[in-house]
Amino acid sequence: MGSVEVPKKHKACVYDKPGTISIKVEEIDTPEPGTGEVLWPMLPYPTQPGQIGGHEGVGTIASFGPGNDSSPLKIGDRVGIKWVASACGSCPPCFAGVDASCTSGKVSGYYYPGTFQQYALAPAHYVTPIPEGVASDLAAPMLCGGLTVYSALKKCRAGPGEWVVIAGASGGLGHLAVQIAAKGMGFRVIGTDVGEKEKFVKDCGAEFFLDVSKFEKGEKGTQDMVKQIRDLAGGFGAAAVLLCAASNAAYAQALDFLRYNGTLVCLGIPEHDPQPIATACPDKLVLKQLSIVGSAVGGRKEAIETLEMAARGVVKTHFRVEKMEGLAKVFEEMDEGKLMGRVVLDLS
Amino acid sequence: MGSVEVPKKHKACVYDKPGTISIKVEEIDTPEPGTGEVLWPMLPYPTQPGQIGGHEGVGTIASFGPGNDSSPLKIGDRVGIKWVASACGSCPPCFAGVDASCTSGKVSGYYYPGTFQQYALAPAHYVTPIPEGVASDLAAPMLCGGLTVYSALKKCRAGPGEWVVIAGASGGLGHLAVQIAAKGMGFRVIGTDVGEKEKFVKDCGAEFFLDVSKFEKGEKGTQDMVKQIRDLAGGFGAAAVLLCAASNAAYAQALDFLRYNGTLVCLGIPEHDPQPIATACPDKLVLKQLSIVGSAVGGRKEAIETLEMAARGVVKTHFRVEKMEGLAKVFEEMDEGKLMGRVVLDLS
Amino acid sequence: MGSVEVPKKHKACVYDKPGTISIKVEEIDTPEPGTGEVLWPMLPYPTQPGQIGGHEGVGTIASFGPGNDSSPLKIGDRVGIKWVASACGSCPPCFAGVDASCTSGKVSGYYYPGTFQQYALAPAHYVTPIPEGVASDLAAPMLCGGLTVYSALKKCRAGPGEWVVIAGASGGLGHLAVQIAAKGMGFRVIGTDVGEKEKFVKDCGAEFFLDVSKFEKGEKGTQDMVKQIRDLAGGFGAAAVLLCAASNAAYAQALDFLRYNGTLVCLGIPEHDPQPIATACPDKLVLKQLSIVGSAVGGRKEAIETLEMAARGVVKTHFRVEKMEGLAKVFEEMDEGKLMGRVVLDLS
Amino acid sequence: MGSVEVPKKHKACVYDKPGTISIKVEEIDTPEPGTGEVLWPMLPYPTQPGQIGGHEGVGTIASFGPGNDSSPLKIGDRVGIKWVASACGSCPPCFAGVDASCTSGKVSGYYYPGTFQQYALAPAHYVTPIPEGVASDLAAPMLCGGLTVYSALKKCRAGPGEWVVIAGASGGLGHLAVQIAAKGMGFRVIGTDVGEKEKFVKDCGAEFFLDVSKFEKGEKGTQDMVKQIRDLAGGFGAAAVLLCAASNAAYAQALDFLRYNGTLVCLGIPEHDPQPIATACPDKLVLKQLSIVGSAVGGRKEAIETLEMAARGVVKTHFRVEKMEGLAKVFEEMDEGKLMGRVVLDLS
Repeated sequence: MGSVEVPKKHKACVYDKPGTISIKVEEIDTPEPGTGEVLWPMLPYPTQPGQIGGHEGVGTIASFGPGNDSSPLKIGDRVGIKWVASACGSCPPCFAGVDASCTSGKVSGYYYPGTFQQYALAPAHYVTPIPEGVASDLAAPMLCGGLTVYSALKKCRAGPGEWVVIAGASGGLGHLAVQIAAKGMGFRVIGTDVGEKEKFVKDCGAEFFLDVSKFEKGEKGTQDMVKQIRDLAGGFGAAAVLLCAASNAAYAQALDFLRYNGTLVCLGIPEHDPQPIATACPDKLVLKQLSIVGSAVGGRKEAIETLEMAARGVVKTHFRVEKMEGLAKVFEEMDEGKLMGRVVLDLS
Repeated sequence: MGSVEVPKKHKACVYDKPGTISIKVEEIDTPEPGTGEVLWPMLPYPTQPGQIGGHEGVGTIASFGPGNDSSPLKIGDRVGIKWVASACGSCPPCFAGVDASCTSGKVSGYYYPGTFQQYALAPAHYVTPIPEGVASDLAAPMLCGGLTVYSALKKCRAGPGEWVVIAGASGGLGHLAVQIAAKGMGFRVIGTDVGEKEKFVKDCGAEFFLDVSKFEKGEKGTQDMVKQIRDLAGGFGAAAVLLCAASNAAYAQALDFLRYNGTLVCLGIPEHDPQPIATACPDKLVLKQLSIVGSAVGGRKEAIETLEMAARGVVKTHFRVEKMEGLAKVFEEMDEGKLMGRVVLDLS
Repeated sequence: MGSVEVPKKHKACVYDKPGTISIKVEEIDTPEPGTGEVLWPMLPYPTQPGQIGGHEGVGTIASFGPGNDSSPLKIGDRVGIKWVASACGSCPPCFAGVDASCTSGKVSGYYYPGTFQQYALAPAHYVTPIPEGVASDLAAPMLCGGLTVYSALKKCRAGPGEWVVIAGASGGLGHLAVQIAAKGMGFRVIGTDVGEKEKFVKDCGAEFFLDVSKFEKGEKGTQDMVKQIRDLAGGFGAAAVLLCAASNAAYAQALDFLRYNGTLVCLGIPEHDPQPIATACPDKLVLKQLSIVGSAVGGRKEAIETLEMAARGVVKTHFRVEKMEGLAKVFEEMDEGKLMGRVVLDLS
Repeated sequence: MGSVEVPKKHKACVYDKPGTISIKVEEIDTPEPGTGEVLWPMLPYPTQPGQIGGHEGVGTIASFGPGNDSSPLKIGDRVGIKWVASACGSCPPCFAGVDASCTSGKVSGYYYPGTFQQYALAPAHYVTPIPEGVASDLAAPMLCGGLTVYSALKKCRAGPGEWVVIAGASGGLGHLAVQIAAKGMGFRVIGTDVGEKEKFVKDCGAEFFLDVSKFEKGEKGTQDMVKQIRDLAGGFGAAAVLLCAASNAAYAQALDFLRYNGTLVCLGIPEHDPQPIATACPDKLVLKQLSIVGSAVGGRKEAIETLEMAARGVVKTHFRVEKMEGLAKVFEEMDEGKLMGRVVLDLS
């Protein structure tokens, strides 16, 4: 299957003090791809503020390890790594189509070499081909945030034309969710967030926007907001709520936005000590026959579908491109809450 | 459509001190059926201990009100009333097949005349025909507990041959759930309950039984039980858990019994102050992609299907028959926790 | 519930020589609404060329019969009649959500008084409320063609972003199907039809258009067309084909457009002698695991959803308005194949 | 991962005159397993009369090729090969869970070394583990007929307690289908076949049996049979028909057995010239909203589920065991229509 010329050494961003945001750029040996693996240069993507990463990346295949004879890929093909960088394809969760729960799945950047380096390895059978028409620097964010919200929307059980509330609608996940829901899946969207984000959220495709900060704190404000959302959503409430905003307060409110048989999809995880959803009491769930569904990052079929949506222009994202040496500064910006949008690292 | 002979007055059990279990038998005027209604003599069924009722009943039609010309029913047909005694058939929840959430639904015994009387009214379009081969005194409990668990099992998203844990397996709802799950729907069942109920629960169709009281209280005991259930259910855990046991502790444990993508179905409502399910934290739901689904009593299509299962002998229940005058004593037994099985009132 | 003033007599279009297109306008007695019925003035809609009718109509409620006390409707509400004008709501098909197959369903204009008259009767529980924001003359066609294609698209088992071929894409049903599929349900559409309809079909939302007449007749032409459709649809073929073009030849080709697991939805019925779909051989269906699904006109839940799509501007149609006296001429135009678009009758 | 002792040569059944049933036993070189493959001794299973084979087999792993480090399997594990012996796991059909349609799938015995030999190769990631409690000579037939009917039943869209007609109920596929449908999936079964098979088919789990040969030939007989099936199935007809009997006449009749919204599942392929299903006319499909679904052999998830059903005793089959040298004679019996039940080859 050949190989393009690959340097003996390449640069990588190495965490020198785990647990902190400290990072330095080092020269490391470029590995040989093992059985079933491919090697490639990376264009990675630090995920949203508060996470450290190396979880996603896009590049073109430089060489193949042995055991790839029947792979449909070839040298030069553009492929991507996502959060779950490797799944076996032959355990019960993989058979059930939930490869994100693969029993031997490997998360990129944690237990598997991450994407903050110039060359990375990945299993040929599990990388995601990048379709023509989607630029590499758009593809990388799609393999994280785009995939995550697409997978969540597929679990929300709303039908075309039904109302979906997206909480945290202007955020990293939320603004992708609004676009995919409204422009890609036929849902009608009510976005909510803190602050004056109406224009941005409506441009993404929402029909309505509610500024959460305009409602009083406490029971009274929640009741007002519940009433307003139900009215906008035809009187009964929304078919689904997608919780992109990871606060315990947002989770507690969300069940009341739903109509009979409605579904709350959890995808954001509130930081610090985990708390039960304060309103997830059996009586409340039983009376309106509500569902709460947890959604992790999606699998490979969904990754392909997300990229197809990006290729068609259904979903876009905002990012800036930084050189590898700028990563430490990006992490500082994240840590200080100053990072706007996403950053794609150019590792060339 | 004619009418059989109907007495001018009939006996009814009247709550004379609402909020207590006090009850007395009175003679009341037999009503004329209104438009779209039927009148019939009742064979009702007080539901499980802890509830007061008049929610379910079976009888044969005595007369029709006007506006029933196109009804497929006729005088003498055996029909039943269930918890939701009337649903409009033309509101959004009814269209969506969740008539239990009908916007103008009427619960028998609360806002609609109950079934603890010799003659009752019900809308002809919504009574449930009782199939041949199922005795009236079996049909009545099926319209409550049987229907409730059947509807919950339909929401549990397990496939044939998958494992379902039924918590509270020997109880009023639980023993019906085990039978319908194992003998009617092709699920494999692990029953749990407090005490030595193994033989009874296995006779109902469970492959395994766990006596919850044999595990230590607290974290250690829960972990042991979780491990044992996962082992029995093929290593990953069950596809679904049905919470027929209405305790907050049981709810808190149940999520850990589930495999990836598993579903906890809530149908029992713990008494006293409602509490959130203690383990329903977003992080837990997200990581294993779990669902929590609330299930109220089922609709009419499900009532018919439940009765068909009873007619085929898939599900049986234990009950004794009491005269109307014995109802007060039945309520006392309930109140003292002495009532075993169910009681069907003979109102003749 | 009151009543607006209703004339003793009103005009109706009466077929004087059944089996022909001959029709005359007569004065008839205005009926009193019976139990559960409403009376209303009509704005009806002759369906597409080749059908005769009186199947759809829109108006405002003039009076109620008895037995409507719990109806959410009131005098002056705008409501519509559709092909199936009445369904019982309590037979097995109705419970299963397929009220179009109701065992006592009545088709408007055949066994139930049609809509080519100034006042018509319909059951209050089954008329379709017309949402604000959709004009009556748009609503009427939606209750026929719009509903029919929406219901078919819901059965096609394609997911958002998947390819659907709509055969007969510029026709009465087809142009509605393209709009609803592409703009309302998130499908990607390839339209096919005879002639230079590319601009019109793409304006409706199709990404590609194929002029069937440009392919050679016979096996060779079919192969070329199959190849082209598969290429456009990502190589494997489309997830679904909707057969709005009612020709035996179109049916025979369509299975080859599908990918593995694909679905052919039949909704157009070829005229004259019915023939089996020439390619519906078990071996072909088995090898690619294909499905063929028949779709009749939709039910009331779907009617409401279709009208909501119209209210949002997802779907539009072209029609002209004619006076009642012009109906005979409209039928002549149909008969001669000269009728372009649809005609809505103004019966005032 | 080691290896058990493997002989340099082993015996295999070789077709010496392709296209005929002629076969001879030869000594051939035992191959080394390649990357990702395992080698094992075989216990294979000639499928039903009319097919030639080597498609299914069971054995214990003798050695591993390279590239299997992360495989959960080990030397001595009992595994099986099925019709589709290899699927890539990373093409669109594989992602969609239809690995039977894998774009690079290999059918055992055709394009991939078959199972009529003492040692066979297969990809480690795709062999089917055989659960404890199911004997190897039962497992082999389950990987063919059992899997095929299980997969078909999963596509039939009937719910628990609904009626399924199984045509050809006493045959190789049919008797497995009846058992799995009735005992494993909660369906109610009406079996049909030619001849006095009532006792056998009811023992398998059917509630009713119809001897097709007792009905007159032609239209009259078909009408009688349709009426009888509809009556048995509650008046409307069955929710699904499974066509295990591969005759054009059986296909033509089957659509009339269905209720509204019913599904005909094709899995048997009539021999000789393929014909369209004679009643698959658009008008018939549209009026009752029927579906026709083709079902090929199932995928690996379904294979595992089928074996679990066998391990629980839900499904059994009848077979005799023959030595390798007896295979030619078995083929003669097949050819003469004398073979009863199945034959498992003992290749030791």
